Amino acid sequence: MNRKQLVEQIFAKKTFLCVGLDTDLTKVPEFILQDDNPIFSFNKAIIDATAQYCVAYKPNLAFYECYGLKGISAFEKTIKYLKNNYPNHFIIADAKRGDIGNTSKMYAHTFFKEYDLDAVTVAPYMGEDSIKPFLEYDGKWVILLALTSNKGSSDFQLFEDKDGSRLFERVITKSQEWSTTNNLMYVVGATQGRMFEDIRKLAPENFLLVPGIGAQGGSLQEVCRYGMIKECGLLVNSSRGIIYASKDKDFAEKASIKAKELQKEMEQELAKL
Amino acid sequence: MNRKQLVEQIFAKKTFLCVGLDTDLTKVPEFILQDDNPIFSFNKAIIDATAQYCVAYKPNLAFYECYGLKGISAFEKTIKYLKNNYPNHFIIADAKRGDIGNTSKMYAHTFFKEYDLDAVTVAPYMGEDSIKPFLEYDGKWVILLALTSNKGSSDFQLFEDKDGSRLFERVITKSQEWSTTNNLMYVVGATQGRMFEDIRKLAPENFLLVPGIGAQGGSLQEVCRYGMIKECGLLVNSSRGIIYASKDKDFAEKASIKAKELQKEMEQELAKL
Repeated sequence: MNRKQLVEQIFAKKTFLCVGLDTDLTKVPEFILQDDNPIFSFNKAIIDATAQYCVAYKPNLAFYECYGLKGISAFEKTIKYLKNNYPNHFIIADAKRGDIGNTSKMYAHTFFKEYDLDAVTVAPYMGEDSIKPFLEYDGKWVILLALTSNKGSSDFQLFEDKDGSRLFERVITKSQEWSTTNNLMYVVGATQGRMFEDIRKLAPENFLLVPGIGAQGGSLQEVCRYGMIKECGLLVNSSRGIIYASKDKDFAEKASIKAKELQKEMEQELAKL
Repeated sequence: MNRKQLVEQIFAKKTFLCVGLDTDLTKVPEFILQDDNPIFSFNKAIIDATAQYCVAYKPNLAFYECYGLKGISAFEKTIKYLKNNYPNHFIIADAKRGDIGNTSKMYAHTFFKEYDLDAVTVAPYMGEDSIKPFLEYDGKWVILLALTSNKGSSDFQLFEDKDGSRLFERVITKSQEWSTTNNLMYVVGATQGRMFEDIRKLAPENFLLVPGIGAQGGSLQEVCRYGMIKECGLLVNSSRGIIYASKDKDFAEKASIKAKELQKEMEQELAKL
């Protein structure tokens, strides 16, 4: 999906919500565990309940890989289900990959050719040749880690050079040399508050993928105040707050309500543009 | 495998070679492709041909994930084969993972509990909580990216603070606060030459995993001159130079010869200690 199509979806549906499919079998309703493929059953129910309120889905690979072949098969089934039933949703593989050029090429092939996903999250530590192979697919996106939502984000991402420029800023300026606003987004945690102003100075037009509202404590209003641009420029993710809204028979219904609440807040924010 | 056992293996076998199982079906001998599980068939032949000359194997996950379920199944079969037939070899999942604490925990579980591997490579960008969950398994290792072998390594890893301290150095000093020399190694590319001296100032006792000799241009002698310590402290990896030594019927034999050549050089280096 290219930028124009993504922006159209956002304004047509009045939402920039991304639902994180971080499906953990210790947290899903117990009756689901009796299904043949409980991860997929859960995902399918969550997707059907939330699709009208979001523009994107983001499965985190860790949650699938940890179940071995079964998990990968559930991941593949989920992707197929999305592509067949909700072809206008943007699908992000939250994989945080990054390797030497030769190997990054293999990962890019996996996510963009094999699975035909729209975007993959990439870790910047290894530099240009680790990122570039992901940028070479038309209509596909790299979502580069810049300033993440977790506590450890300050350990290295805020490392400062002699001019006061921080590592995450260098990641942004450097990566802009290799990319366009049509194939590169950045991960910026909702917990980073006013840092969105600093990010927007360096990346005024790029889309930002924003995890960390809800369970991790970030505020949607603050993210929008400092991070929103004319074309929206935000995909705000919620995982636990939506998919684990209830552990009972009504889990999908409750997920739908939570997603709708966020969509309504987002609609108000978009109306301010 | 703990440090004592690893050091014993190195001195008993007179080698610190790690063979990279980066199995690419476009590069294996054609007749192998007719097998039911060509990736596993290739790996099995390479393992049997090289086991006596190395102490470690390092499959890079990218090469397995790119074949979907088939690839993951070949990965699992390779691990089982190694564990059943060569239980004294150290197995590294070259995965370069790293995510928020909650998610890193899932990855750690996958590699250390599900697959029971000895080590996993981890990317440091997200900081402490992304790394710590991997450090909590007895006899298991994090191999943290420090100064990698690729061209892009200079983009961010050499980023300097006002005191001239570079990012890779901060990664080393910070990570030592969370770990011991019994559960943390660093990735340092063989192409980094005398930089090994700088690394040894900060990590005098840690094991280093060293990719980049052979195809990538690093020199074994230089790595040993500047990086070797009393307990060896090195695992030097070769992938392409060994596993693709021939594309004919004799591929395993040729791999064995290449591995033996490296083992002989390593024996000489160990004799200098």
